[in-house]
Amino acid sequence: MKLSSNYVDGKYANLTKLFENIAKEGEEAQFVAYVGGQLVADLACGFSPDSLTVVYSVSKALSAIAVAKMVDQGLLDLDQTVAHYWPEFAAAGKQDITVRQLLSHQGGLPETRAGLTPGQLMDGKAAADLLAAEAPLWRPGAGFGYHALSIGPLVGELCRRITGKTIQEYYDAEVREPADADAYLGLPESLEPRVAELLPQLPNAEFPPATGAPNPLDSHVNRNVPMPFITSREGRKAGLASASGVASARGLAAVFNWATGYGSETPGIAPDTLQDFAQTQVFGTDWVSGSNPRSHGILFMKPTSAIPFGSFQSFGHDGFGGAVVVADPVGQIVYGYAIRRITNPAGMDRRLQPIIDELRAVALA
Amino acid sequence: MKLSSNYVDGKYANLTKLFENIAKEGEEAQFVAYVGGQLVADLACGFSPDSLTVVYSVSKALSAIAVAKMVDQGLLDLDQTVAHYWPEFAAAGKQDITVRQLLSHQGGLPETRAGLTPGQLMDGKAAADLLAAEAPLWRPGAGFGYHALSIGPLVGELCRRITGKTIQEYYDAEVREPADADAYLGLPESLEPRVAELLPQLPNAEFPPATGAPNPLDSHVNRNVPMPFITSREGRKAGLASASGVASARGLAAVFNWATGYGSETPGIAPDTLQDFAQTQVFGTDWVSGSNPRSHGILFMKPTSAIPFGSFQSFGHDGFGGAVVVADPVGQIVYGYAIRRITNPAGMDRRLQPIIDELRAVALA
Amino acid sequence: MKLSSNYVDGKYANLTKLFENIAKEGEEAQFVAYVGGQLVADLACGFSPDSLTVVYSVSKALSAIAVAKMVDQGLLDLDQTVAHYWPEFAAAGKQDITVRQLLSHQGGLPETRAGLTPGQLMDGKAAADLLAAEAPLWRPGAGFGYHALSIGPLVGELCRRITGKTIQEYYDAEVREPADADAYLGLPESLEPRVAELLPQLPNAEFPPATGAPNPLDSHVNRNVPMPFITSREGRKAGLASASGVASARGLAAVFNWATGYGSETPGIAPDTLQDFAQTQVFGTDWVSGSNPRSHGILFMKPTSAIPFGSFQSFGHDGFGGAVVVADPVGQIVYGYAIRRITNPAGMDRRLQPIIDELRAVALA
Repeated sequence: MKLSSNYVDGKYANLTKLFENIAKEGEEAQFVAYVGGQLVADLACGFSPDSLTVVYSVSKALSAIAVAKMVDQGLLDLDQTVAHYWPEFAAAGKQDITVRQLLSHQGGLPETRAGLTPGQLMDGKAAADLLAAEAPLWRPGAGFGYHALSIGPLVGELCRRITGKTIQEYYDAEVREPADADAYLGLPESLEPRVAELLPQLPNAEFPPATGAPNPLDSHVNRNVPMPFITSREGRKAGLASASGVASARGLAAVFNWATGYGSETPGIAPDTLQDFAQTQVFGTDWVSGSNPRSHGILFMKPTSAIPFGSFQSFGHDGFGGAVVVADPVGQIVYGYAIRRITNPAGMDRRLQPIIDELRAVALA
Repeated sequence: MKLSSNYVDGKYANLTKLFENIAKEGEEAQFVAYVGGQLVADLACGFSPDSLTVVYSVSKALSAIAVAKMVDQGLLDLDQTVAHYWPEFAAAGKQDITVRQLLSHQGGLPETRAGLTPGQLMDGKAAADLLAAEAPLWRPGAGFGYHALSIGPLVGELCRRITGKTIQEYYDAEVREPADADAYLGLPESLEPRVAELLPQLPNAEFPPATGAPNPLDSHVNRNVPMPFITSREGRKAGLASASGVASARGLAAVFNWATGYGSETPGIAPDTLQDFAQTQVFGTDWVSGSNPRSHGILFMKPTSAIPFGSFQSFGHDGFGGAVVVADPVGQIVYGYAIRRITNPAGMDRRLQPIIDELRAVALA
Repeated sequence: MKLSSNYVDGKYANLTKLFENIAKEGEEAQFVAYVGGQLVADLACGFSPDSLTVVYSVSKALSAIAVAKMVDQGLLDLDQTVAHYWPEFAAAGKQDITVRQLLSHQGGLPETRAGLTPGQLMDGKAAADLLAAEAPLWRPGAGFGYHALSIGPLVGELCRRITGKTIQEYYDAEVREPADADAYLGLPESLEPRVAELLPQLPNAEFPPATGAPNPLDSHVNRNVPMPFITSREGRKAGLASASGVASARGLAAVFNWATGYGSETPGIAPDTLQDFAQTQVFGTDWVSGSNPRSHGILFMKPTSAIPFGSFQSFGHDGFGGAVVVADPVGQIVYGYAIRRITNPAGMDRRLQPIIDELRAVALA
């Protein structure tokens, strides 16, 4: 695929060469990085640097910035109970679950027992009501397991109760607009022409499908991933806070560059708030997937030896399709990545790792 | 061995063929299943469908139903401290341990430091007194480790303090009799002629003995398993709530069919109570054996990728000898299995898995 | 190397033969063991039984005995908050961290985000002030990760606030002197001539360096281990409570023999206090190194299947260089080991295991 190097800072010239390895495989991809608030790389291959794709769970990183804004504005206290803001949530033994626990995947609500439908998830409120009535699937706080989709209606309902707005509205007004970023929770119809539909996953001999029985809860929660509705026009319009955000790499990096404000006097989010959201809340074996190691902050994904996207202080999120956005206080690094072909294995494109390593090495030199 | 197919519902005809694979290996075994409260399979090979064997830790599933009955009757609150019901238990730093923690193997009392003797375990009260005086082997609540034998006197003493009866008496009156089940905690002398003594484990090249050092606590707690007294006449008479229950597969399934009441208006135990007992309390590495993954609800064993006996909502328990009893709200499935030859590896007979998979597939079709 | 068998009890004669295997590899090493308070082995090879070496994290076992003495004297309650004794520690979300959590590596302070310098660590107070101001790197109590160096200034500042003395002064007066032991936190200048400088690690084909990405936090906390200052003259003089103690095997064993007082009426530390310090506080995956299994009591290391240095009741600590000190109530065993050549892999010299196994077998026979 044709590589379009829109900008690369001289010190970071090796990034172009490393990015070419992805281009050579015929991928359509975008990579944008800032160091200390300065753009150091803006690379694309195969499609426009302004093409938009569904970034799956990278959406959680956008939601996280919105929730951090609520904390900054004094609207939300992570150590309050969820029921304080959302009384119905107290049902069925959930009265003591804190916002901190819920938003770090410890609340035991990765699904309802009956299973949420696409319609309920798209509606948001419908899914939230069902989750509020549900007894936790595990003892709250005893462990964590990735709430791949359910975290969307949960964080959405919290936002609605606190701000009176949907999480999509709040994100748009308080994050996306001030950041002037092409990264949407709920894509406007007018931008649909810029969307590049995701391409299906290809086999990868290096990563054969897992054998052996899955964790029983995984079979229930992730029985149908990727759900096609997530990437549909309806999904893009709904902008699920968990999974159907739409962005370019430029847009992802712009949100994190605005939020962190490295090198500026006016970060979009107070650094102490981001540090609290980036604090490791959970680490180890995921009770849904059974995978290990996994780690989360507040809504953010944390790096592990499995996906070492930055220093221990870094935070962000990857998505099923391969996209990722990361900020790292060590080196004041921000980067975003998007790719059209769903990667195999799913999650952050492993081919991005040498690019990340080079970026960090130069930034810290 | 001769297979006696006493009943198989037409839709479940494949179960007979799959069960024959166990029969062909010369085993004496029994398998009984209900779906929606209806008997769908009643199979036996080698010995009578009414032969009784010691089912080791499947006993914990029988005890669990008895404890759930105490909760149903308003006698026991899982979130109370153990010391509330049993003041002496508060000794040596155990004042805050809850019933929920104790019954999900989190209390740090898988043994005394001195080691409980068979006599103390058979007596029950003697073992309970020693455990009540003991400082927990780990910080209570910090982790879990299977209380293979000690859970018996612990649950027994709780029952005695709360109901004035032994757990064996309470189980017999409140569970076994109403369920009309051949599944005993304390086998009456009159039934001894129906007992088939267990046969010793055979080598299995597919499951060679573990190499490497054991977890140090495992060496202490499980230094002498299987303890011969468990399966002796004295053990069968004592009916240790942890390990020396005696049953047929028909009896095991009957207890769970009665308790769940799938398809009936009158479950033996309230569905909400069973759901609470089936909630995952702990998951991951067992601090006694060092094994992973292990998972428990309240007294119940939960399925894992290692022993996937049902959906994430399923609950039950396997035993050292290979027997198992399970109920699964997903599909309203209940099944019991017993086998005379102690399996290798110990725990649920791995050859049962295709039978379970077929049962679930048909029930959910 | 020449083996000097200064004393071996007849029943333990095999220990000499097993120790010769280490001597034959050209090592300079010392091994001393007590059973029931009686010396049963005092072996050395290559250098004097009274040579002193830096024992790295075995220092934590010496500090643990000092802290246990504070508890014995009624000065310290493990279940109090750290901030109760050290108000500044309450900063940045640490107000609820208990002494128990902090001293079992659960406080989330294995380092500062900026990274402590050798100067700050040597000063102690400087490092403690920085740690007191730091937000925990993980949610306190959520998990544990080895505080390899930072535990030194943390325990040091607790001691200063409580006793008015440095941990080195307190240890010297309350432990080392009464134990009459050649085991120092802060080596007097006059003893420098007896120091044998450690020799560098050699490659070991059986234990190749780990491949794959490290845990991101490991890269930060252990980015420069072993730090040369630890074993320098300055380090030995400072006597970091975490890492730069200096001792012979005789000295290590003497401290633990005095503290446990097996076979005597006058243990240096009350047995109940030692039992509480030896209780397993944490077990599983270390959130700093990502290693598993790891386990700790209060400051003490606990044995695991990876390093099975004793029964589940045993406690002690190994060091990066290969030294170790252990006490085991099961068999009333105490032993100390020191070695000049830094072992590979780091931590307790794996060649010591057959010696430990023989010692335990004879003591328990």
